[in-house]
Amino acid sequence: MSGETRERPANGGQAKPAMRDALVAAALQLFVERGFEQTTIDDIVALAGVGRRSFFRYFPSKEAVVFPDHEGRLAEMSGFLGASGPDDDPVQRVCDAARFVGRMYADNPEFSVQRYRLTRQVPGLRTHELSVVWRYEKVLAEFLRARFAVRPDRTLRADVVAASVVAAHNHALRAWLRSGGRGDVLADVDEALEYVHQVWCDLCAGPGAGAGGDGGGDPADDVVVVFAKRGVPMWRLVQGVEAALDET
Amino acid sequence: MSGETRERPANGGQAKPAMRDALVAAALQLFVERGFEQTTIDDIVALAGVGRRSFFRYFPSKEAVVFPDHEGRLAEMSGFLGASGPDDDPVQRVCDAARFVGRMYADNPEFSVQRYRLTRQVPGLRTHELSVVWRYEKVLAEFLRARFAVRPDRTLRADVVAASVVAAHNHALRAWLRSGGRGDVLADVDEALEYVHQVWCDLCAGPGAGAGGDGGGDPADDVVVVFAKRGVPMWRLVQGVEAALDET
Repeated sequence: MSGETRERPANGGQAKPAMRDALVAAALQLFVERGFEQTTIDDIVALAGVGRRSFFRYFPSKEAVVFPDHEGRLAEMSGFLGASGPDDDPVQRVCDAARFVGRMYADNPEFSVQRYRLTRQVPGLRTHELSVVWRYEKVLAEFLRARFAVRPDRTLRADVVAASVVAAHNHALRAWLRSGGRGDVLADVDEALEYVHQVWCDLCAGPGAGAGGDGGGDPADDVVVVFAKRGVPMWRLVQGVEAALDET
Repeated sequence: MSGETRERPANGGQAKPAMRDALVAAALQLFVERGFEQTTIDDIVALAGVGRRSFFRYFPSKEAVVFPDHEGRLAEMSGFLGASGPDDDPVQRVCDAARFVGRMYADNPEFSVQRYRLTRQVPGLRTHELSVVWRYEKVLAEFLRARFAVRPDRTLRADVVAASVVAAHNHALRAWLRSGGRGDVLADVDEALEYVHQVWCDLCAGPGAGAGGDGGGDPADDVVVVFAKRGVPMWRLVQGVEAALDET
Protein backbone atom coordinates (compact mmCIF):
# COMPACT_ATOMS: atom_id res chain seq x y z
CA MET A 1 0.00 0.00 0.00
CA SER A 2 2.78 2.41 0.85
CA GLY A 3 4.66 0.93 -2.12
CA GLU A 4 8.02 1.20 -0.45
CA THR A 5 9.44 -1.87 -2.11
CA ARG A 6 9.53 -0.22 -5.52
CA GLU A 7 12.77 1.61 -6.20
CA ARG A 8 13.60 4.49 -8.46
CA PRO A 9 15.57 3.07 -11.44
CA ALA A 10 19.33 3.62 -11.22
CA ASN A 11 19.44 5.52 -14.48
CA GLY A 12 16.43 7.71 -13.84
CA GLY A 13 17.27 9.75 -10.77
CA GLN A 14 20.29 11.66 -11.99
CA ALA A 15 19.39 12.10 -15.64
CA LYS A 16 16.34 14.36 -15.34
CA PRO A 17 16.24 16.16 -11.99
CA ALA A 18 14.27 18.99 -13.61
CA MET A 19 11.41 16.63 -14.47
CA ARG A 20 11.44 15.22 -10.94
CA ASP A 21 11.39 18.73 -9.46
CA ALA A 22 8.57 19.71 -11.80
CA LEU A 23 6.49 16.74 -10.63
CA VAL A 24 7.05 17.62 -6.96
CA ALA A 25 6.15 21.28 -7.52
CA ALA A 26 3.04 20.41 -9.54
CA ALA A 27 1.89 17.85 -6.97
CA LEU A 28 2.32 20.21 -4.03
CA GLN A 29 0.51 23.01 -5.84
CA LEU A 30 -2.46 20.78 -6.66
CA PHE A 31 -2.60 19.15 -3.22
CA VAL A 32 -2.76 22.58 -1.59
CA GLU A 33 -5.25 24.03 -4.08
CA ARG A 34 -7.63 21.08 -4.53
CA GLY A 35 -6.79 18.73 -1.69
CA PHE A 36 -4.80 15.51 -1.73
CA GLU A 37 -7.69 13.11 -2.31
CA GLN A 38 -9.15 15.25 -5.08
CA THR A 39 -5.89 15.29 -7.06
CA THR A 40 -5.09 12.39 -9.39
CA ILE A 41 -1.70 11.39 -10.74
CA ASP A 42 -3.07 12.36 -14.17
CA ASP A 43 -3.68 15.90 -12.87
CA ILE A 44 -0.09 16.08 -11.61
CA VAL A 45 1.56 14.88 -14.82
CA ALA A 46 -0.68 17.20 -16.89
CA LEU A 47 0.40 20.25 -14.88
CA ALA A 48 4.06 19.18 -14.90
CA GLY A 49 3.84 18.59 -18.66
CA VAL A 50 5.15 15.03 -18.57
CA GLY A 51 3.73 11.58 -19.29
CA ARG A 52 2.13 9.33 -16.65
CA ARG A 53 4.95 6.83 -16.85
CA SER A 54 7.45 9.53 -15.88
CA PHE A 55 5.68 9.89 -12.55
CA PHE A 56 6.23 6.25 -11.67
CA ARG A 57 9.82 6.49 -12.83
CA TYR A 58 10.45 8.78 -9.88
CA PHE A 59 7.82 7.97 -7.28
CA PRO A 60 6.11 4.74 -6.25
CA SER A 61 2.91 6.44 -5.09
CA LYS A 62 1.02 9.72 -4.74
CA GLU A 63 2.11 9.82 -1.10
CA ALA A 64 5.81 9.46 -1.95
CA VAL A 65 5.90 12.60 -4.10
CA VAL A 66 5.26 14.64 -0.94
CA PHE A 67 8.47 13.26 0.62
CA PRO A 68 10.82 13.36 -2.38
CA ASP A 69 14.15 13.59 -0.56
CA HIS A 70 13.86 10.98 2.17
CA GLU A 71 15.35 8.10 0.17
CA GLY A 72 18.46 10.18 -0.51
CA ARG A 73 18.71 11.22 3.12
CA LEU A 74 18.35 7.65 4.34
CA ALA A 75 21.17 6.59 2.03
CA GLU A 76 23.38 9.47 3.21
CA MET A 77 22.65 8.63 6.82
CA SER A 78 23.54 4.97 6.34
CA GLY A 79 26.79 5.97 4.63
CA PHE A 80 27.65 8.37 7.44
CA LEU A 81 27.00 5.74 10.12
CA GLY A 82 28.93 3.12 8.15
CA ALA A 83 31.95 5.43 8.05
CA SER A 84 32.01 5.70 11.87
CA GLY A 85 35.34 4.85 13.48
CA PRO A 86 35.60 2.41 16.42
CA ASP A 87 36.45 5.24 18.85
CA ASP A 88 33.52 7.45 17.93
CA ASP A 89 30.91 7.95 20.62
CA PRO A 90 28.00 5.98 19.10
CA VAL A 91 25.28 8.13 20.66
CA GLN A 92 26.94 11.28 19.33
CA ARG A 93 27.22 9.66 15.92
CA VAL A 94 23.53 8.84 15.87
CA CYS A 95 22.67 12.41 16.87
CA ASP A 96 24.85 13.70 14.03
CA ALA A 97 23.13 11.31 11.63
CA ALA A 98 19.72 12.65 12.70
CA ARG A 99 20.92 16.17 11.82
CA PHE A 100 20.92 15.16 8.13
CA VAL A 101 17.14 15.16 8.29
CA GLY A 102 16.95 18.52 10.05
CA ARG A 103 19.18 20.09 7.40
CA MET A 104 16.97 18.75 4.62
CA TYR A 105 13.97 20.57 6.15
CA ALA A 106 15.99 23.73 6.85
CA ASP A 107 17.26 23.87 3.25
CA ASN A 108 13.75 24.44 1.95
CA PRO A 109 11.63 26.07 4.67
CA GLU A 110 8.69 27.05 2.47
CA PHE A 111 8.26 23.56 1.05
CA SER A 112 8.74 22.01 4.49
CA VAL A 113 6.06 24.15 6.12
CA GLN A 114 3.62 23.63 3.24
CA ARG A 115 4.12 19.88 3.44
CA TYR A 116 3.71 19.89 7.22
CA ARG A 117 0.32 21.62 6.92
CA LEU A 118 -0.75 19.17 4.25
CA THR A 119 0.40 16.19 6.29
CA ARG A 120 -1.73 17.31 9.27
CA GLN A 121 -4.81 17.28 7.04
CA VAL A 122 -4.39 14.03 5.10
CA PRO A 123 -4.34 10.80 7.16
CA GLY A 124 -2.68 8.89 4.31
CA LEU A 125 0.22 11.33 4.25
CA ARG A 126 0.54 11.23 8.02
CA THR A 127 0.75 7.43 7.86
CA HIS A 128 3.30 7.60 5.07
CA GLU A 129 5.38 10.00 7.13
CA LEU A 130 5.27 7.61 10.09
CA SER A 131 6.66 4.85 7.89
CA VAL A 132 9.50 7.16 6.79
CA VAL A 133 10.31 8.08 10.40
CA TRP A 134 10.24 4.40 11.33
CA ARG A 135 12.85 3.65 8.66
CA TYR A 136 15.17 6.37 9.98
CA GLU A 137 14.78 5.01 13.50
CA LYS A 138 15.55 1.49 12.29
CA VAL A 139 18.78 2.62 10.60
CA LEU A 140 19.91 4.35 13.82
CA ALA A 141 18.94 1.39 16.01
CA GLU A 142 20.78 -1.09 13.80
CA PHE A 143 23.95 0.96 14.01
CA LEU A 144 23.64 1.15 17.80
CA ARG A 145 22.94 -2.58 18.15
CA ALA A 146 26.25 -3.29 16.43
CA ARG A 147 28.12 -0.70 18.50
CA PHE A 148 26.60 -1.83 21.79
CA ALA A 149 27.40 -5.48 20.98
CA VAL A 150 29.37 -6.12 24.16
CA ARG A 151 26.76 -4.69 26.51
CA PRO A 152 24.26 -6.99 28.23
CA ASP A 153 21.43 -4.50 27.54
CA ARG A 154 22.56 -4.18 23.91
CA THR A 155 19.40 -4.35 21.78
CA LEU A 156 17.10 -2.77 24.34
CA ARG A 157 19.46 0.15 24.82
CA ALA A 158 19.91 0.54 21.06
CA ASP A 159 16.16 0.68 20.44
CA VAL A 160 15.49 3.08 23.29
CA VAL A 161 18.35 5.44 22.39
CA ALA A 162 17.31 5.47 18.71
CA ALA A 163 13.71 6.25 19.72
CA SER A 164 14.88 9.02 22.08
CA VAL A 165 17.04 10.61 19.37
CA VAL A 166 14.23 10.54 16.82
CA ALA A 167 11.73 11.92 19.34
CA ALA A 168 14.05 14.77 20.34
CA HIS A 169 14.84 15.63 16.72
CA ASN A 170 11.20 15.61 15.72
CA HIS A 171 10.19 17.59 18.78
CA ALA A 172 12.38 20.51 17.66
CA LEU A 173 11.49 20.07 14.00
CA ARG A 174 7.73 20.02 14.59
CA ALA A 175 7.86 23.12 16.81
CA TRP A 176 9.64 24.96 13.99
CA LEU A 177 7.17 23.71 11.38
CA ARG A 178 4.20 24.73 13.55
CA SER A 179 5.70 28.21 13.87
CA GLY A 180 5.66 28.51 10.08
CA GLY A 181 9.43 28.07 9.80
CA ARG A 182 10.50 30.94 12.06
CA GLY A 183 13.78 30.89 13.98
CA ASP A 184 16.85 28.69 13.68
CA VAL A 185 15.62 25.13 13.43
CA LEU A 186 19.13 23.66 13.30
CA ALA A 187 20.06 25.31 16.59
CA ASP A 188 16.84 23.98 18.14
CA VAL A 189 17.49 20.50 16.77
CA ASP A 190 21.06 20.60 18.13
CA GLU A 191 19.80 21.58 21.57
CA ALA A 192 17.19 18.80 21.65
CA LEU A 193 19.71 16.21 20.47
CA GLU A 194 22.22 17.35 23.05
CA TYR A 195 19.57 16.86 25.74
CA VAL A 196 19.22 13.22 24.72
CA HIS A 197 22.95 12.78 24.23
CA GLN A 198 23.60 13.98 27.77
CA VAL A 199 21.13 11.51 29.21
CA TRP A 200 22.52 8.47 27.43
CA CYS A 201 26.14 9.51 27.53
CA ASP A 202 26.06 10.34 31.21
CA LEU A 203 25.05 6.76 31.65
CA CYS A 204 27.87 5.55 29.35
CA ALA A 205 30.32 7.28 31.67
CA GLY A 206 28.83 5.69 34.80
CA PRO A 207 30.55 2.84 36.68
CA GLY A 208 30.41 -0.51 34.93
CA ALA A 209 29.49 0.85 31.51
CA GLY A 210 32.94 0.93 29.96
CA ALA A 211 32.33 3.27 27.01
CA GLY A 212 34.31 6.50 27.30
CA GLY A 213 33.46 10.05 26.25
CA ASP A 214 33.73 11.30 22.69
CA GLY A 215 37.15 12.86 23.21
CA GLY A 216 35.92 16.25 22.04
CA GLY A 217 35.38 19.42 24.03
CA ASP A 218 37.13 20.95 27.03
CA PRO A 219 37.86 18.35 29.75
CA ALA A 220 36.89 20.94 32.37
CA ASP A 221 33.36 20.79 30.92
CA ASP A 222 33.04 17.02 31.20
CA VAL A 223 30.28 15.80 33.42
CA VAL A 224 30.91 13.20 36.08
CA VAL A 225 28.00 11.04 37.12
CA VAL A 226 27.87 8.99 40.26
CA PHE A 227 25.32 6.31 41.00
CA ALA A 228 25.12 4.89 44.46
CA LYS A 229 22.64 2.89 46.47
CA ARG A 230 21.34 4.82 49.40
CA GLY A 231 22.99 2.62 52.01
CA VAL A 232 26.51 3.17 50.70
CA PRO A 233 28.86 5.02 53.11
CA MET A 234 30.25 8.40 52.10
CA TRP A 235 33.86 7.16 51.84
CA ARG A 236 32.79 4.65 49.15
CA LEU A 237 31.11 7.46 47.23
CA VAL A 238 34.21 9.62 47.36
CA GLN A 239 36.30 6.65 46.22
CA GLY A 240 33.90 6.14 43.32
CA VAL A 241 34.03 9.80 42.32
CA GLU A 242 37.82 9.81 42.40
CA ALA A 243 38.01 6.67 40.28
CA ALA A 244 35.60 8.20 37.76
CA LEU A 245 37.66 11.41 37.56
CA ASP A 246 40.81 9.36 36.91
CA GLU A 247 39.14 7.41 34.12
CA THR A 248 37.71 10.28 32.12
CA MET B 1 -6.48 5.77 3.74
CA SER B 2 -6.11 4.51 7.27
CA GLY B 3 -9.72 5.55 7.88
CA GLU B 4 -9.11 6.42 11.48
CA THR B 5 -11.70 9.14 11.60
CA ARG B 6 -14.61 6.73 11.31
CA GLU B 7 -15.85 5.46 14.65
CA ARG B 8 -17.67 2.33 15.62
CA PRO B 9 -21.29 3.29 16.44
CA ALA B 10 -22.10 3.50 20.12
CA ASN B 11 -24.85 0.89 19.92
CA GLY B 12 -22.92 -1.57 17.76
CA GLY B 13 -19.89 -2.54 19.81
CA GLN B 14 -21.56 -4.14 22.80
CA ALA B 15 -24.62 -5.65 21.19
CA LYS B 16 -23.02 -8.30 18.97
CA PRO B 17 -19.55 -9.21 20.16
CA ALA B 18 -19.95 -12.66 18.62
CA MET B 19 -20.37 -11.16 15.15
CA ARG B 20 -17.33 -8.99 15.66
CA ASP B 21 -15.27 -11.96 16.84
CA ALA B 22 -16.48 -13.99 13.86
CA LEU B 23 -15.32 -11.26 11.47
CA VAL B 24 -11.88 -11.11 13.09
CA ALA B 25 -11.47 -14.88 13.01
CA ALA B 26 -12.63 -15.14 9.39
CA ALA B 27 -10.36 -12.29 8.29
CA LEU B 28 -7.27 -13.74 9.98
CA GLN B 29 -7.95 -17.18 8.55
CA LEU B 30 -8.27 -15.81 5.01
CA PHE B 31 -5.30 -13.45 5.30
CA VAL B 32 -3.08 -16.34 6.41
CA GLU B 33 -4.45 -18.79 3.81
CA ARG B 34 -4.72 -16.53 0.74
CA GLY B 35 -2.73 -13.44 1.61
CA PHE B 36 -3.93 -10.02 2.69
CA GLU B 37 -4.09 -8.41 -0.76
CA GLN B 38 -5.89 -11.40 -2.27
CA THR B 39 -8.67 -11.31 0.33
CA THR B 40 -11.62 -8.97 -0.18
CA ILE B 41 -14.04 -7.72 2.43
CA ASP B 42 -16.70 -9.73 0.56
CA ASP B 43 -14.66 -12.89 1.18
CA ILE B 44 -14.47 -12.09 4.88
CA VAL B 45 -18.19 -11.44 5.37
CA ALA B 46 -19.04 -14.55 3.34
CA LEU B 47 -16.91 -16.76 5.59
CA ALA B 48 -18.21 -15.08 8.75
CA GLY B 49 -21.77 -15.47 7.49
CA VAL B 50 -22.73 -11.81 7.89
CA GLY B 51 -23.60 -8.94 5.55
CA ARG B 52 -21.09 -6.48 4.11
CA ARG B 53 -22.54 -3.62 6.11
CA SER B 54 -21.85 -5.47 9.34
CA PHE B 55 -18.15 -5.36 8.56
CA PHE B 56 -18.16 -1.58 8.40
CA ARG B 57 -20.23 -1.42 11.55
CA TYR B 58 -17.22 -2.76 13.43
CA PHE B 59 -14.17 -1.85 11.36
CA PRO B 60 -13.30 1.16 9.22
CA SER B 61 -10.97 -0.78 6.91
CA LYS B 62 -9.52 -4.17 6.02
CA GLU B 63 -6.37 -3.19 7.95
CA ALA B 64 -8.31 -2.35 11.11
CA VAL B 65 -9.80 -5.85 11.48
CA VAL B 66 -6.26 -7.14 12.13
CA PHE B 67 -5.98 -4.86 15.18
CA PRO B 68 -9.44 -5.24 16.69
CA ASP B 69 -8.65 -4.41 20.31
CA HIS B 70 -6.49 -1.30 20.06
CA GLU B 71 -9.34 1.21 20.28
CA GLY B 72 -10.50 -0.35 23.52
CA ARG B 73 -6.97 -0.40 24.91
CA LEU B 74 -6.39 3.24 23.99
CA ALA B 75 -9.56 4.19 25.81
CA GLU B 76 -8.56 2.16 28.88
CA MET B 77 -5.12 3.71 28.86
CA SER B 78 -6.50 7.24 28.68
CA GLY B 79 -8.86 6.47 31.56
CA PHE B 80 -6.02 5.04 33.65
CA LEU B 81 -3.82 8.08 33.04
CA GLY B 82 -6.70 10.44 33.71
CA ALA B 83 -7.22 8.79 37.11
CA SER B 84 -3.62 9.48 38.14
CA GLY B 85 -3.20 11.33 41.45
CA PRO B 86 -0.99 14.40 41.79
CA ASP B 87 1.58 12.48 43.86
CA ASP B 88 1.99 9.59 41.42
CA ASP B 89 5.37 9.31 39.75
CA PRO B 90 4.40 10.26 36.17
CA VAL B 91 7.05 8.09 34.49
CA GLN B 92 5.91 5.09 36.52
CA ARG B 93 2.31 5.83 35.58
CA VAL B 94 3.17 5.92 31.89
CA CYS B 95 5.04 2.60 32.20
CA ASP B 96 1.98 1.09 33.90
CA ALA B 97 -0.23 2.43 31.12
CA ALA B 98 2.00 0.79 28.50
CA ARG B 99 1.49 -2.55 30.28
CA PHE B 100 -2.16 -2.50 29.15
CA VAL B 101 -0.93 -3.16 25.63
CA GLY B 102 1.41 -5.96 26.69
CA ARG B 103 -1.42 -7.67 28.55
CA MET B 104 -3.66 -7.51 25.48
CA TYR B 105 -1.02 -9.44 23.48
CA ALA B 106 -0.36 -11.88 26.31
CA ASP B 107 -4.08 -12.66 26.68
CA ASN B 108 -4.18 -14.19 23.22
CA PRO B 109 -0.71 -15.46 22.28
CA GLU B 110 -1.74 -17.48 19.22
CA PHE B 111 -3.62 -14.59 17.62
CA SER B 112 -0.80 -12.17 18.51
CA VAL B 113 1.91 -14.32 16.92
CA GLN B 114 -0.18 -14.98 13.81
CA ARG B 115 -0.84 -11.27 13.39
CA TYR B 116 2.83 -10.44 13.94
CA ARG B 117 3.85 -12.78 11.10
CA LEU B 118 1.19 -11.31 8.84
CA THR B 119 2.23 -7.75 9.68
CA ARG B 120 5.85 -8.48 8.68
CA GLN B 121 4.64 -9.57 5.24
CA VAL B 122 2.10 -6.87 4.38
CA PRO B 123 3.42 -3.29 4.10
CA GLY B 124 -0.09 -1.86 4.49
CA LEU B 125 -0.54 -3.65 7.83
CA ARG B 126 2.89 -2.59 9.01
CA THR B 127 1.98 1.02 8.23
CA HIS B 128 -1.36 0.66 10.00
CA GLU B 129 0.42 -0.75 13.04
CA LEU B 130 2.78 2.25 13.06
CA SER B 131 -0.19 4.58 13.15
CA VAL B 132 -1.62 2.66 16.11
CA VAL B 133 1.71 2.81 17.98
CA TRP B 134 1.91 6.53 17.24
CA ARG B 135 -1.50 7.06 18.86
CA TYR B 136 -0.41 5.23 22.03
CA GLU B 137 2.74 7.32 22.17
CA LYS B 138 0.74 10.51 21.74
CA VAL B 139 -1.57 9.63 24.64
CA LEU B 140 1.44 8.98 26.90
CA ALA B 141 3.23 12.16 25.78
CA GLU B 142 0.16 14.33 26.38
CA PHE B 143 -0.18 13.01 29.92
CA LEU B 144 3.52 13.70 30.59
CA ARG B 145 3.35 17.20 29.09
CA ALA B 146 0.65 18.07 31.60
CA ARG B 147 2.52 16.47 34.48
CA PHE B 148 5.85 18.08 33.58
CA ALA B 149 4.19 21.49 33.23
CA VAL B 150 6.51 23.25 35.67
CA ARG B 151 9.74 21.98 34.14
CA PRO B 152 11.62 24.12 31.62
CA ASP B 153 12.26 21.05 29.41
CA ARG B 154 8.59 20.09 29.69
CA THR B 155 7.45 19.14 26.19
CA LEU B 156 10.82 17.83 25.02
CA ARG B 157 11.12 15.62 28.08
CA ALA B 158 7.54 14.40 27.70
CA ASP B 159 8.05 13.42 24.07
CA VAL B 160 11.38 11.70 24.70
CA VAL B 161 10.15 9.78 27.76
CA ALA B 162 7.01 8.65 25.90
CA ALA B 163 9.12 7.48 22.95
CA SER B 164 11.52 5.66 25.31
CA VAL B 165 8.67 3.88 27.08
CA VAL B 166 7.05 2.78 23.81
CA ALA B 167 10.40 1.63 22.39
CA ALA B 168 11.21 -0.41 25.51
CA HIS B 169 7.74 -1.97 25.61
CA ASN B 170 7.84 -2.88 21.94
CA HIS B 171 11.38 -4.20 22.21
CA ALA B 172 10.25 -6.83 24.71
CA LEU B 173 6.98 -7.49 22.91
CA ARG B 174 8.59 -8.02 19.50
CA ALA B 175 11.22 -10.39 20.91
CA TRP B 176 8.42 -12.50 22.37
CA LEU B 177 6.43 -12.40 19.11
CA ARG B 178 9.53 -13.39 17.09
CA SER B 179 10.05 -16.34 19.45
CA GLY B 180 6.56 -17.58 18.58
CA GLY B 181 5.13 -16.51 21.93
CA ARG B 182 7.47 -18.49 24.19
CA GLY B 183 8.33 -17.34 27.70
CA ASP B 184 6.74 -14.77 29.98
CA VAL B 185 6.18 -11.65 27.89
CA LEU B 186 4.77 -9.67 30.80
CA ALA B 187 7.93 -10.24 32.86
CA ASP B 188 10.05 -9.19 29.88
CA VAL B 189 7.92 -6.09 29.31
CA ASP B 190 8.20 -5.20 33.00
CA GLU B 191 11.98 -5.51 32.89
CA ALA B 192 12.28 -3.33 29.76
CA LEU B 193 9.97 -0.69 31.21
CA GLU B 194 11.89 -0.67 34.48
CA TYR B 195 15.08 -0.03 32.49
CA VAL B 196 13.54 3.12 31.03
CA HIS B 197 11.93 4.11 34.31
CA GLN B 198 15.30 3.94 36.06
CA VAL B 199 16.92 6.19 33.46
CA TRP B 200 14.31 8.90 33.62
CA CYS B 201 13.61 8.61 37.29
CA ASP B 202 17.24 8.71 38.27
CA LEU B 203 17.30 12.03 36.53
CA CYS B 204 14.18 13.17 38.39
CA ALA B 205 16.05 12.60 41.63
CA GLY B 206 19.11 14.54 40.48
CA PRO B 207 19.90 18.07 41.71
CA GLY B 208 17.68 20.79 40.26
CA ALA B 209 14.97 18.47 39.01
CA GLY B 210 12.53 18.83 41.85
CA ALA B 211 10.33 15.77 41.30
CA GLY B 212 10.73 13.19 44.03
CA GLY B 213 10.71 9.39 43.88
CA ASP B 214 7.57 7.31 43.71
CA GLY B 215 7.53 6.61 47.43
CA GLY B 216 7.55 2.84 46.91
CA GLY B 217 10.31 0.32 47.65
CA ASP B 218 12.95 0.06 50.34
CA PRO B 219 14.77 3.38 50.90
CA ALA B 220 18.03 1.44 51.29
CA ASP B 221 17.65 0.43 47.64
CA ASP B 222 17.18 3.98 46.37
CA VAL B 223 19.72 5.16 43.88
CA VAL B 224 21.34 8.55 44.25
CA VAL B 225 22.64 10.29 41.15
CA VAL B 226 24.98 13.24 41.19
CA PHE B 227 26.05 15.26 38.17
CA ALA B 228 29.05 17.51 38.39
CA LYS B 229 31.30 19.31 35.96
CA ARG B 230 34.81 17.91 35.93
CA GLY B 231 36.42 21.02 37.40
CA VAL B 232 34.30 20.89 40.58
CA PRO B 233 36.31 20.27 43.79
CA MET B 234 35.72 17.10 45.76
CA TRP B 235 34.18 18.90 48.76
CA ARG B 236 31.43 20.29 46.48
CA LEU B 237 30.69 16.77 45.22
CA VAL B 238 30.44 15.42 48.74
CA GLN B 239 28.14 18.30 49.65
CA GLY B 240 26.00 17.47 46.62
CA VAL B 241 25.81 13.79 47.52
CA GLU B 242 24.85 14.63 51.11
CA ALA B 243 22.15 17.02 49.94
CA ALA B 244 20.77 14.37 47.57
CA LEU B 245 20.71 11.78 50.37
CA ASP B 246 18.82 14.20 52.61
CA GLU B 247 16.27 14.93 49.93
CA THR B 248 15.37 11.36 49.00
